[in-house]
Amino acid sequence: MQLQRALTGLPGVLDAGVVMGTQANKKILEQSGLLTHEALEAAADDLVILVRASDAAACEAALAQVDVLLLQRRSAAEQDYQPKSLESAAQALPSARWLLVSVPGRYAGAVARDGLRLGKHVFLYSDNVPMAEEVELKQAAAQGGLLVMGPDCGTAIVNGIGLGFANVVRRGPIGLVAASGTGLQEVASRIHQLGGGISHALGTGGRDLSEAVHAVTARQSLDLLGRDPQTRVIVLVSKPPAPAVADTLLHAARQLNKPIVVDFIGYPRAVRRLDHIYFAGTLDETAEWAVRLAADQGHGSSDQSPAESETAAGSFASGQRYLRGLFSGGTLAYEALLLLQDYLPVVYSNAPLRKEHRLASSMVSQAHSIIDLGEDEFTVGRLHPMMDNDLRIRRLQQEAQDPEVALILMDVVLGFGAHPEPASELAPAIATARAGAESEGRLLEVVLAVVGTDQDPQNMANQMGRLEAAGARVMNSNLTAVLYAGRRLQALDRITPDANFRPVELSALHQPLAAINVGLTSFSESLESQGAPVVQVDWHPPAGGNERLAAILERMKRK
Amino acid sequence: MQLQRALTGLPGVLDAGVVMGTQANKKILEQSGLLTHEALEAAADDLVILVRASDAAACEAALAQVDVLLLQRRSAAEQDYQPKSLESAAQALPSARWLLVSVPGRYAGAVARDGLRLGKHVFLYSDNVPMAEEVELKQAAAQGGLLVMGPDCGTAIVNGIGLGFANVVRRGPIGLVAASGTGLQEVASRIHQLGGGISHALGTGGRDLSEAVHAVTARQSLDLLGRDPQTRVIVLVSKPPAPAVADTLLHAARQLNKPIVVDFIGYPRAVRRLDHIYFAGTLDETAEWAVRLAADQGHGSSDQSPAESETAAGSFASGQRYLRGLFSGGTLAYEALLLLQDYLPVVYSNAPLRKEHRLASSMVSQAHSIIDLGEDEFTVGRLHPMMDNDLRIRRLQQEAQDPEVALILMDVVLGFGAHPEPASELAPAIATARAGAESEGRLLEVVLAVVGTDQDPQNMANQMGRLEAAGARVMNSNLTAVLYAGRRLQALDRITPDANFRPVELSALHQPLAAINVGLTSFSESLESQGAPVVQVDWHPPAGGNERLAAILERMKRK
Repeated sequence: MQLQRALTGLPGVLDAGVVMGTQANKKILEQSGLLTHEALEAAADDLVILVRASDAAACEAALAQVDVLLLQRRSAAEQDYQPKSLESAAQALPSARWLLVSVPGRYAGAVARDGLRLGKHVFLYSDNVPMAEEVELKQAAAQGGLLVMGPDCGTAIVNGIGLGFANVVRRGPIGLVAASGTGLQEVASRIHQLGGGISHALGTGGRDLSEAVHAVTARQSLDLLGRDPQTRVIVLVSKPPAPAVADTLLHAARQLNKPIVVDFIGYPRAVRRLDHIYFAGTLDETAEWAVRLAADQGHGSSDQSPAESETAAGSFASGQRYLRGLFSGGTLAYEALLLLQDYLPVVYSNAPLRKEHRLASSMVSQAHSIIDLGEDEFTVGRLHPMMDNDLRIRRLQQEAQDPEVALILMDVVLGFGAHPEPASELAPAIATARAGAESEGRLLEVVLAVVGTDQDPQNMANQMGRLEAAGARVMNSNLTAVLYAGRRLQALDRITPDANFRPVELSALHQPLAAINVGLTSFSESLESQGAPVVQVDWHPPAGGNERLAAILERMKRK
Repeated sequence: MQLQRALTGLPGVLDAGVVMGTQANKKILEQSGLLTHEALEAAADDLVILVRASDAAACEAALAQVDVLLLQRRSAAEQDYQPKSLESAAQALPSARWLLVSVPGRYAGAVARDGLRLGKHVFLYSDNVPMAEEVELKQAAAQGGLLVMGPDCGTAIVNGIGLGFANVVRRGPIGLVAASGTGLQEVASRIHQLGGGISHALGTGGRDLSEAVHAVTARQSLDLLGRDPQTRVIVLVSKPPAPAVADTLLHAARQLNKPIVVDFIGYPRAVRRLDHIYFAGTLDETAEWAVRLAADQGHGSSDQSPAESETAAGSFASGQRYLRGLFSGGTLAYEALLLLQDYLPVVYSNAPLRKEHRLASSMVSQAHSIIDLGEDEFTVGRLHPMMDNDLRIRRLQQEAQDPEVALILMDVVLGFGAHPEPASELAPAIATARAGAESEGRLLEVVLAVVGTDQDPQNMANQMGRLEAAGARVMNSNLTAVLYAGRRLQALDRITPDANFRPVELSALHQPLAAINVGLTSFSESLESQGAPVVQVDWHPPAGGNERLAAILERMKRK
């Protein structure tokens, strides 16, 4: 880049291009009208230098300068002693616990692996690293209590020192985990602009939240920031992750005892807040919420702790774990499915959110199930379940006999057109179902969302009172009822913590940062200007770029 | 249902089932252990009556009661004079402008069509109406200035009178449009519970927002409530519509001069508010916002009108209409694509949200385009565009020469690792690009999102100042920059209003409601109990249920 700029500044030079001879770069040169026949034949490893000038003489003169300019550049980069290997770099700077890697992608994995062997955390800027190599590196790191940020990790801030691309931000109580480089930079910058501050900001690389990698680095980072006393609020930013990975991360987020703001950019979240997890819609909002939460933290405010009545709820028998939703309202069933996504990974239905969660038979529930009894399949030649409770009561009896069922969720829609007195039929059925379960040593919770008003012909208060007297938990909004059910069942869902993880020591964040850098010298310069000790490795492709020889060397090292 | 309940109440009867002999009902009977050999052979049109009793005598006795019970029921329904046809019903109650239809689905279309011929608005409760028939009915209605709510429309409130299933709610300034029955009931009930009130609530039927129907009824309803002086805040509720339909509806919403709360349940919306459109995540939140907005309306508060600087922006030449985004940050490009969905239906990209919007070539923009120049295809053997502006500047020049381009959007990321002085290169390039366009009579807007802090090594204020001096519009957040660009381009997007619509007269809402009812007598009873005049048609399937004869009759009517 500097060479190109220097060339363009020479007399008579109209344009210049200095790039590696990749296909993509050739296309770009073509767009600029710079692609010559020779350049077209360059290999991906060749450095292509092209000059367009006002006349042939200017062109010659410019090209004659190339060696001089390249030498200037090289001498600037090589002014100090540079070790030739990671091992000697590690000996030269024993306090360096971090390794920065920005060599071309196909060499980066090997360098990172060397770093892990030496017990270093790795900041892996390089892109074009194969997915399988990323998985292998991260698994090895996690087992050794080390972090691999990246590949394709653009940015991080560790203990006040920026790695790669990093903005200078005030220190403070907000810790960031991000699978997106500029996402992290935008949120960190906005937090600073809003008066907030950052404890640490950990990048994971864009593919960390893919199904294959399954968020190894993100989970390590959440765990680490969760234990970090400097961090009081956590932010998690990523493009939409694979659904299974989102579930894993939300499970991890729930275990934290700190508020966490999540921005799965563009990932639908109907609810803004689930206990201490906040779902933001934009990077801006993420920053705003984090700053506000950090300010609140001092005052110990917590306006959504579970109500006392919830904690006072009884205990289920062992084996009881499933939800069965029996809805008369299609939209209420749909909203329930949507809201429960945040609590229960899979809910089956006859009207599911995803095809693969369709019940094999609408007549028989599987695991967590929500049945929309207002679907056409149930209403041909039969009154709607809002008018006729018969079908729902039969299904309630059926579900209540299932020893795996813990909670039954139903809507009760009042108003004109609906059954004139639903409680007169539902209340006895609920009481019977609960008593039947109790006689077999089970607690059957029945949660009802009543839709209606105090002016409805049914007398809402009276209906609710009779349903409560039958032992049901009665709410006057679908949202409240569904979220209650979600919390209640989630408490039954005891996932064993990931056994493969060795926790990263907090000292990784707390010791003054020192690093080894392999690749872009500008990264070394950045660290130096921030006062962080750094040693630059004088790296060259192994075996002079001979890939077969390099592979042999690599295999020898592993033994 | 009443028969079934009466049978179950007879001595010795353990269980009873009274249903039409459809496949679905047979399955349900089977679940209840009520399915007999004879019932299995019943046709869908047969009424199946089954009784399980303690002994054969009780069973016989119960079945002997059936005729008596059926006669009781019939006499109750037929106590008054009932006209045999829609025409005579219309003559009997000339003030009736509404027709309620709840006959079986395969007959419902014909009844609705008759109603439209007589100039009635139709509330079509029946489900199982073919999609093609729905499209035909709604097109005909829209051209005649009539509404068809449904098929499968469960609920509506017109001028204080509930149709179908409807809660009794306070009257007030909030108007509802909903493609989901219980969604509407839940929102209306919650609004009432929160102290708010409803002007009118118009159901559309669940399929109205499908691609085939393309929201005919929803658009008519928005238009109607938009003109209704009683309605000050509008609510739109639906399960996720087809994307093209969502675009159409949001376009319609933008034309309204009233605040509108939209809940496309589960449809991702990153931004909570676009001017006067509010995106809620749950039915509960929808109700809360509507009530709050209705309360605010009196005070004329409007905190998000476009800033003066925006309205003062210059005018584009005719033919200028496209956005070109040139991003160095992948996540910033991604967020831009996401946010722009609400303004521009299609934005092409080399990293698009949907596969079908991928650019044919990353080197050449199409219509609205956003290029992520940090994608691997651009960075193999080349520095990242945050460090090296060369590629971006070349692309800027290319885009600036395109006479269809109106606005160029870029991010400028500061901080360690990034270019030490991006403005030194970008500012002259921007000034040149703008001047070039101006010399050809075009206004080229350049909008920049600067990511950085006042402590970054580049001196953010200085960089921003120099970029502004070059004529760029400079913001310190990606969100602000993208939303500005979206608003600016949307103003160029003049969609001609739908010519096929004849507006529904406001008197449809404002005259005291009177109706003709064909089908469920309970709907007539509801209307009577609300004090609304209603005439029940003594309807029977045309040609005694002989479908071929019925089809001939129908064809004769159309001529």
